[in-house]
Amino acid sequence: FESKLPNLGVSIFSQMSGLANQFSAINLSQGFPEFDAPALLKTQLNYYVQQGVNQYSPSSGVPRLQQQIANLVERKYAAKINAAEQVTVTSGATEALFVAIQTIVRPDDEVIVFDPAYDSYQPAIELAGGKAVHVALSAPNYTIDWQIVSQAITKNTRAIIVNTPHNPSGKILQPQDIKELKELVSAHNIFVISDEVYEHITFDGQQHLSMLRDEQLREKSFVISSFGKTFHSTGWKMGYCIAPAHLATEFRKIHQYVTFSSFTPAQHALADMLEQQGEHVDELSGFYQQKRDLLIKHLSDSRFNILPSQGTYFLLLDYSDVSDLNDVDFCHWLVEQAGVAAIPLSVFYKQPSNDKVIRLCFAKNDETLIEAAQILCQL
Amino acid sequence: FESKLPNLGVSIFSQMSGLANQFSAINLSQGFPEFDAPALLKTQLNYYVQQGVNQYSPSSGVPRLQQQIANLVERKYAAKINAAEQVTVTSGATEALFVAIQTIVRPDDEVIVFDPAYDSYQPAIELAGGKAVHVALSAPNYTIDWQIVSQAITKNTRAIIVNTPHNPSGKILQPQDIKELKELVSAHNIFVISDEVYEHITFDGQQHLSMLRDEQLREKSFVISSFGKTFHSTGWKMGYCIAPAHLATEFRKIHQYVTFSSFTPAQHALADMLEQQGEHVDELSGFYQQKRDLLIKHLSDSRFNILPSQGTYFLLLDYSDVSDLNDVDFCHWLVEQAGVAAIPLSVFYKQPSNDKVIRLCFAKNDETLIEAAQILCQL
Ligand SMILES: CSCCC(=O)C(=O)O
Ligand SMILES: CSCCC(=O)C(=O)O
Repeated sequence: FESKLPNLGVSIFSQMSGLANQFSAINLSQGFPEFDAPALLKTQLNYYVQQGVNQYSPSSGVPRLQQQIANLVERKYAAKINAAEQVTVTSGATEALFVAIQTIVRPDDEVIVFDPAYDSYQPAIELAGGKAVHVALSAPNYTIDWQIVSQAITKNTRAIIVNTPHNPSGKILQPQDIKELKELVSAHNIFVISDEVYEHITFDGQQHLSMLRDEQLREKSFVISSFGKTFHSTGWKMGYCIAPAHLATEFRKIHQYVTFSSFTPAQHALADMLEQQGEHVDELSGFYQQKRDLLIKHLSDSRFNILPSQGTYFLLLDYSDVSDLNDVDFCHWLVEQAGVAAIPLSVFYKQPSNDKVIRLCFAKNDETLIEAAQILCQL
Repeated sequence: FESKLPNLGVSIFSQMSGLANQFSAINLSQGFPEFDAPALLKTQLNYYVQQGVNQYSPSSGVPRLQQQIANLVERKYAAKINAAEQVTVTSGATEALFVAIQTIVRPDDEVIVFDPAYDSYQPAIELAGGKAVHVALSAPNYTIDWQIVSQAITKNTRAIIVNTPHNPSGKILQPQDIKELKELVSAHNIFVISDEVYEHITFDGQQHLSMLRDEQLREKSFVISSFGKTFHSTGWKMGYCIAPAHLATEFRKIHQYVTFSSFTPAQHALADMLEQQGEHVDELSGFYQQKRDLLIKHLSDSRFNILPSQGTYFLLLDYSDVSDLNDVDFCHWLVEQAGVAAIPLSVFYKQPSNDKVIRLCFAKNDETLIEAAQILCQL
């Protein structure tokens, strides 16, 4: 039996969370919060479950959730979108990414992916018969060299996947990036898949430049977000994709045969949450900035070199001064011997990377972050 | 923009449920129950939500749910399976079907599909680059002519999709079918994707012959089931796939990039349900047989010809004596003018079918079934 994904095994996130459990380590690897979903969200979920709202939702999502998403987009990005035609609720951002890629990538199409890249892009592209063309972000700040992107474009280029705020680097696309992207997209007639799952987590007053803000980009983009990140409920697997109506139609054709629809009571609960406690979304950046700053402060006496994080709930550490091990071995040592689980950065690269960098997730309680930092300071 | 699925639109189930709502018709079209999930399941869901079990589950599923599924399989089919290695929890049977097809179908592979066939098989095969080879079930009883199947096999045949109990006909595979399937599978080295989502709904003492019962078939099969059908919770989108370990490994590689994992609190609640109220599963056949018989009784004075249903919660009606319209037009007329939504059978066929047959879902309250039957008796 020949594998369809011969070079892939169990995802690094599953591996590291597994090791963290096995060795009772502090788990700063897989990206999920240690704190719980908001009380209102949980109460409302139960309300709809008890009311008996437990059968299929429409395949594109519960209309009032679609509308609340459109309202949020208008409020945050001053973009008017048609909820019924453009918003599709999905079983997590992972499904949205997978379906968006299936929607546009045909055999032999090329898709530009920036390394370090989230691990699901490449297999999704391959399963569609396409080819991921990897462009490395530029050291040391993980910026995009648009000259290189431009050179990577061929007549087979079908799409470009951007991710802002960027996992794992925390980098946020800047106005100049958007300008360059726009030029590229209009010059070459390519689509944008924009992974914006950390859209509400940006630091130091930085603004998230969603593709939805720009009328031209919006027309070519699948914009993907995640309620799991926004509402501390990664286990609910709720996300969505916003696309122009003609692209959403095609996205939905595939979505209906991939999962058909998503957990109905959760959709209603999320609609209530967005309607009644919209401030949760606005407070998220401040909430996580405090976490980031706390972790940085408690790492200041360590021998790790802390890289800047502009958004997401991840922080990169350079451990060159701590260990000579490669990052995968270092992370195994760290979880097994030191009791802290982290993600080695090389797994986000197609080309072997020799950077001595690991990723920490700081979506954890303050005590957990302090405890982890204390361990790391002793290395 | 060229569609990846140019011949497909919105699924018939979405269309018909939409029309049913629009015309306030009794909805016997899309297959979902009118009654609610068991109280224990709902209580336990809320318990885990309130306990804060709201983050990612392992990608293959919560271990105690995997174990309960394995226990159920052992109890019902006397098959010992390894829960950790063979059971993967999915976001509904639709995801399980999609991922199983992606796992084994390569470009230009052929997959044998029996018509009438559930609507998601064909697009999933096409998206994997494969080709569905349609074999029509034999009239009037929707039996499989294994001679024809045998002739449909080529060197490119990769898999065969069976569905028992069969949606929409309610037909159950018989011992002779299993024998023929076994011979075919071992002679040609092909895989079986076995859609058994109605496994617990069989009538008149008929036994469901799961692929899991047979040691040889089990080694070549992806067996797919659905908690939505079993626990009246289609909107929870919980299902699973059981496969031999080496196939499950490949299935999981893809599953982790399609949805990664499923609603965590629901997985725990389902484990509790299976553990504490296993009798629900055993009572399902009797429960639905009463519904089937009630509907048949109240249709006895109608001009519809009722076809036999051995399982599922569907009943086929031949309307030759009622109308000359084709089945799609008849269903439109029925929902708009008569106030009953049904599914036209031709949509389950690749080749145009001239049969005058519609499908009714009888997973409804007795009053609803009686009311619908009264309307149909007047036609
Ligand atoms: C779906 S598990 C991965 C979670 C995540 O987004 C990350 O850790 O980067
Ligand atoms: C996913 S909607 C279709 C539900 C169903 O199984 C059917 O009606 O056949």
